[in-house]
Amino acid sequence: MNKLKVGVVGVGYWGPNIIRNFHAMDNASVVAVSDTNAKTFSRALRISDRIRTETDYKRITDAKDIDIVCVVTPVASHYEVARRALEQGKHVFVEKPFTASSAQAEELITLARSRGLRIMVDHTMLFTGSVRKMKDVVDSGVMGKLLYYDSMRVNLGLFQHDVNVIWDLAPHDFSIADYLLSSKPVAVAAHGLDHFDRGAEDVAYVVIYFENNIIAHCNFNWISPIKVRHVLLSGEYKSLLWDDVEPDEKIKIYDRGVKVPDREKMHQLLVTYRFGDMVAPKVDNKEALALEAEYFLDGILKGSPFINDGEAGLRMVKLLEACDRSLKNRGELVLL
Amino acid sequence: MNKLKVGVVGVGYWGPNIIRNFHAMDNASVVAVSDTNAKTFSRALRISDRIRTETDYKRITDAKDIDIVCVVTPVASHYEVARRALEQGKHVFVEKPFTASSAQAEELITLARSRGLRIMVDHTMLFTGSVRKMKDVVDSGVMGKLLYYDSMRVNLGLFQHDVNVIWDLAPHDFSIADYLLSSKPVAVAAHGLDHFDRGAEDVAYVVIYFENNIIAHCNFNWISPIKVRHVLLSGEYKSLLWDDVEPDEKIKIYDRGVKVPDREKMHQLLVTYRFGDMVAPKVDNKEALALEAEYFLDGILKGSPFINDGEAGLRMVKLLEACDRSLKNRGELVLL
Amino acid sequence: MNKLKVGVVGVGYWGPNIIRNFHAMDNASVVAVSDTNAKTFSRALRISDRIRTETDYKRITDAKDIDIVCVVTPVASHYEVARRALEQGKHVFVEKPFTASSAQAEELITLARSRGLRIMVDHTMLFTGSVRKMKDVVDSGVMGKLLYYDSMRVNLGLFQHDVNVIWDLAPHDFSIADYLLSSKPVAVAAHGLDHFDRGAEDVAYVVIYFENNIIAHCNFNWISPIKVRHVLLSGEYKSLLWDDVEPDEKIKIYDRGVKVPDREKMHQLLVTYRFGDMVAPKVDNKEALALEAEYFLDGILKGSPFINDGEAGLRMVKLLEACDRSLKNRGELVLL
Amino acid sequence: MNKLKVGVVGVGYWGPNIIRNFHAMDNASVVAVSDTNAKTFSRALRISDRIRTETDYKRITDAKDIDIVCVVTPVASHYEVARRALEQGKHVFVEKPFTASSAQAEELITLARSRGLRIMVDHTMLFTGSVRKMKDVVDSGVMGKLLYYDSMRVNLGLFQHDVNVIWDLAPHDFSIADYLLSSKPVAVAAHGLDHFDRGAEDVAYVVIYFENNIIAHCNFNWISPIKVRHVLLSGEYKSLLWDDVEPDEKIKIYDRGVKVPDREKMHQLLVTYRFGDMVAPKVDNKEALALEAEYFLDGILKGSPFINDGEAGLRMVKLLEACDRSLKNRGELVLL
Repeated sequence: MNKLKVGVVGVGYWGPNIIRNFHAMDNASVVAVSDTNAKTFSRALRISDRIRTETDYKRITDAKDIDIVCVVTPVASHYEVARRALEQGKHVFVEKPFTASSAQAEELITLARSRGLRIMVDHTMLFTGSVRKMKDVVDSGVMGKLLYYDSMRVNLGLFQHDVNVIWDLAPHDFSIADYLLSSKPVAVAAHGLDHFDRGAEDVAYVVIYFENNIIAHCNFNWISPIKVRHVLLSGEYKSLLWDDVEPDEKIKIYDRGVKVPDREKMHQLLVTYRFGDMVAPKVDNKEALALEAEYFLDGILKGSPFINDGEAGLRMVKLLEACDRSLKNRGELVLL
Repeated sequence: MNKLKVGVVGVGYWGPNIIRNFHAMDNASVVAVSDTNAKTFSRALRISDRIRTETDYKRITDAKDIDIVCVVTPVASHYEVARRALEQGKHVFVEKPFTASSAQAEELITLARSRGLRIMVDHTMLFTGSVRKMKDVVDSGVMGKLLYYDSMRVNLGLFQHDVNVIWDLAPHDFSIADYLLSSKPVAVAAHGLDHFDRGAEDVAYVVIYFENNIIAHCNFNWISPIKVRHVLLSGEYKSLLWDDVEPDEKIKIYDRGVKVPDREKMHQLLVTYRFGDMVAPKVDNKEALALEAEYFLDGILKGSPFINDGEAGLRMVKLLEACDRSLKNRGELVLL
Repeated sequence: MNKLKVGVVGVGYWGPNIIRNFHAMDNASVVAVSDTNAKTFSRALRISDRIRTETDYKRITDAKDIDIVCVVTPVASHYEVARRALEQGKHVFVEKPFTASSAQAEELITLARSRGLRIMVDHTMLFTGSVRKMKDVVDSGVMGKLLYYDSMRVNLGLFQHDVNVIWDLAPHDFSIADYLLSSKPVAVAAHGLDHFDRGAEDVAYVVIYFENNIIAHCNFNWISPIKVRHVLLSGEYKSLLWDDVEPDEKIKIYDRGVKVPDREKMHQLLVTYRFGDMVAPKVDNKEALALEAEYFLDGILKGSPFINDGEAGLRMVKLLEACDRSLKNRGELVLL
Repeated sequence: MNKLKVGVVGVGYWGPNIIRNFHAMDNASVVAVSDTNAKTFSRALRISDRIRTETDYKRITDAKDIDIVCVVTPVASHYEVARRALEQGKHVFVEKPFTASSAQAEELITLARSRGLRIMVDHTMLFTGSVRKMKDVVDSGVMGKLLYYDSMRVNLGLFQHDVNVIWDLAPHDFSIADYLLSSKPVAVAAHGLDHFDRGAEDVAYVVIYFENNIIAHCNFNWISPIKVRHVLLSGEYKSLLWDDVEPDEKIKIYDRGVKVPDREKMHQLLVTYRFGDMVAPKVDNKEALALEAEYFLDGILKGSPFINDGEAGLRMVKLLEACDRSLKNRGELVLL
């Protein structure tokens, strides 16, 4: 079997993980990487000293021996690099968020479709054992109708230079909510503050109204003294807590819920509560990026669809754009 | 010394606590209580079998031997009972939230002032060891400029019949934020959903913009599978976590913060983070209501001002009203 | 139905709980209490003002109108009071530990048997929702063969005046292990230190060897800065953690275990580990003492046996005596 | 400056960490490694492809270009390899536990001394930020007289093939207690069970009596469903908890203690308890092994003494031997 040849543009913080995982696949190998900063090359060469290194990304996008281009640059350049790669007939694997605007995302989708090429957006979280377990639970129907998605994603962390706290942290929750809720967002409101006059919010609170009376709420914060990674997903019959800081019991499924009396009796009777067992299922701890890379390569070879295709990437960018619009007007509701 | 004579209107869930605490004071005794439901009287008589019991609240407000009336009824009747008590020359201690509307609150304040009577609104939380410790820390200045107040107050709890989740849970946070931030709220936005068609939201998210670039955010939820009582209060130099579910270390003060470079250098230099010690100070665990009752009686005898006077109660009711208005228009920003 | 008449000797710390629970039973009422300290009587009268109060315990043991005597005095006087009550034809409910020596316990058991009277020792823990749930799990067989019982019961707590930390805290674990393991203890070793020259150990570590290759280990400590209430009960297939400090999930059942290869292959093959789900079952939170009182009264009326009869009390006292002997010789193994 | 040349014998689980850390030092480089299993060599070559690989350890111990031999083999061969290295004039860095018997340890110490060579035993734990912080706190005197050391070190972990649970886990606690308590152990008792007939205990409980009325207690367990890494170190005035599973607040210092009345009043007066603040100091998270390697190389160059020299290694082996003797006689007290 001929291996798929992969080129990686961008060898910064996340790039080496992409290189390592694609290079470890049976049906692929990384043949070349590029970065404007040649000091990063050692990170690639430690994985394989046969990888070509380039400072001009076009030596990757245009290389004859490359089938797939991974775009792991800052978001501002995703569009330029991915477009060039598609134009040169390469499949692309693009870091999240997909692009800096929905117009760019739409153009890339159209371009790929016209050339018969594939796009995957690196929504890594969807491939973690935790999110896959959550998806199984939701799809099994045991939770009943979903009621809300509530995320707290805060830490004293890295200020990003080029984006605000929403563009930095929300892609996690937006891709997960998109995947789990299977429901269309209809409106978004976002509040935030830029405490240090940096031109970018450091705390932000986002509310998304979905169809079917579901609400999602996210608390994003770069300046919290503590790290919290909580997602509550609540259903009529069962609710679920994902605590990603917890080393062992990341997912807890609570057999707890509200029993509401029949509508006609509702004003006389009390709502009651049900407290049952809690189960912390075993969660697979395979590396998410390895599963994602395998899924991408398989999909290219078999032509199977991706849950995290360009369209999924576009839906996320639209939410991010709506957040920006809402932020500017202190939480104005933005219809989607 | 003649003891102050206290009458209590409402002997439901919270009433017995009021009776027990006022009755235990050196300078007061509870002489009479009323409730429309005579079955509740045993709760009062267990405290003292010399307490008079009445089914008509006017037998309390109008009693010649009573100096103080505690109004512990549902919020809808606070105004009626408190007004009657004031008209009859009694000081009033009113359960939170103060009144069902700001107009009612203003009328009661005016009435009390004209008669030289005192109003205290039962913002019990302000008298807990935790909030008193937080106040000390904030006032000491060690936190530097305050940045945000973030509360998560959720549980699978009691649906209230007459109010939504904001009127039920927000009085805690609104009174605490009012007390700690010493800053004026300028605008409010509230989102929520009524999942069970009960005419009252069961989850809600509130954002309050304060002067001085401070933001408060509250996550209220009656249908969470888990109980969370987290308040994060963050300052330039130190941040503080109040975890009221924690049995021992309720308050944690983190010596962590953000160092932002001088403004002119800001675009070249990275923001850095400071990680220092954490201190969980000893928190006094005296019963909050006992301290509050003592403070109320002292204030009446000495004429000293209250932190939780009618004005404080009014400020809270205005926030609750603003939330209701915002909720109706899916998070519309309501200026104060 | 005639109610059983209960007299209570000792109205100190635990006495009021005994009075309250027996008095609340349908088929019993507390008619009299005694204490050498008359100041304690108000605690009884708060429960019912028709209770007779006495300073001489013989006015209880010898009272014609009393069927049952609860002995809630310090352990040194259990024997004297219980013997008198039995001689006077009363059933006895005796605080743990049963007696100050096994000889005393044996005498009381013989006495009760000869008179057709019943003894219950107040091993309250056996009636908690947590221990009942643990018993159900053990008896269901899902855990497989039991391997060990490991308890950590430590806190910065109350120094007892008359006993060491083992006599104070071990009755909890000794009664629980006796109940759950259904296995005979064969030897005991106890180590401890008396750091403050009080003539009584403040920290102690106890090991009990049971039949069937089961070991129990207990860590008792009065001078720990933190409170820990952990019991690990481990079986071949599943293990169980009881964390009594945890408000909600007190019992966790882990589907984890060791797979040991067949004996002949053992030196070649590795032991492997199995990690499965964890379940925190709903635990009933009815008051243990109420259930125990009901069980005692039922047993008297129906003649049914008690899990916490005099024999169970005797087994515990024998373990405590063995601990004392071992402590004196720095952990010498004491065979039972 | 000429770099010190390091050879490493044993490239199994821990070997690569030794190689990586010594190789990263400014004043040393790893020039050769050996292992009987040539498949392990890639782990060394990934660190540097200029490292020589050998299958016979004598090609390391006897190599002319090597100054230091790191012995990272199973404990059974430590003595043989280290002796050969010393005879060949090399300094040795030996994995813990130092040797399989105290006689071996003594022989190595004598040999090194006679040749003017240095021995360091890899008590890595002493170089963690947590233990260094604990040492600072103890040495500052704020804790007052130390009272006990209590460790719980349990997990569903790796059965070791050649040793029991004490030889596997106790070296951590024995080296830490030796370092922190600065007190001489006088007697040891160890209990344990071999539940799976493997000829090695899988759970064990160890008590060590130290001079000055200090007691150490350790709970070791390979078959626990949960991982616990707790060390409580208690003093007259302050106590300390080290929770190594906790990601952030590994060390907590509690201002809590016991106030014992003067001896003559002791039988009248109650012991009282003091509850003050808790502080979780910032703990340095530099890699322990890097600090240890640096300390070793510095010590060789400067002739400065080691806290973890051969004598410290010998003290630990003596404790392990005493445990084995005690285990065989079900907890018999072994005097040291």
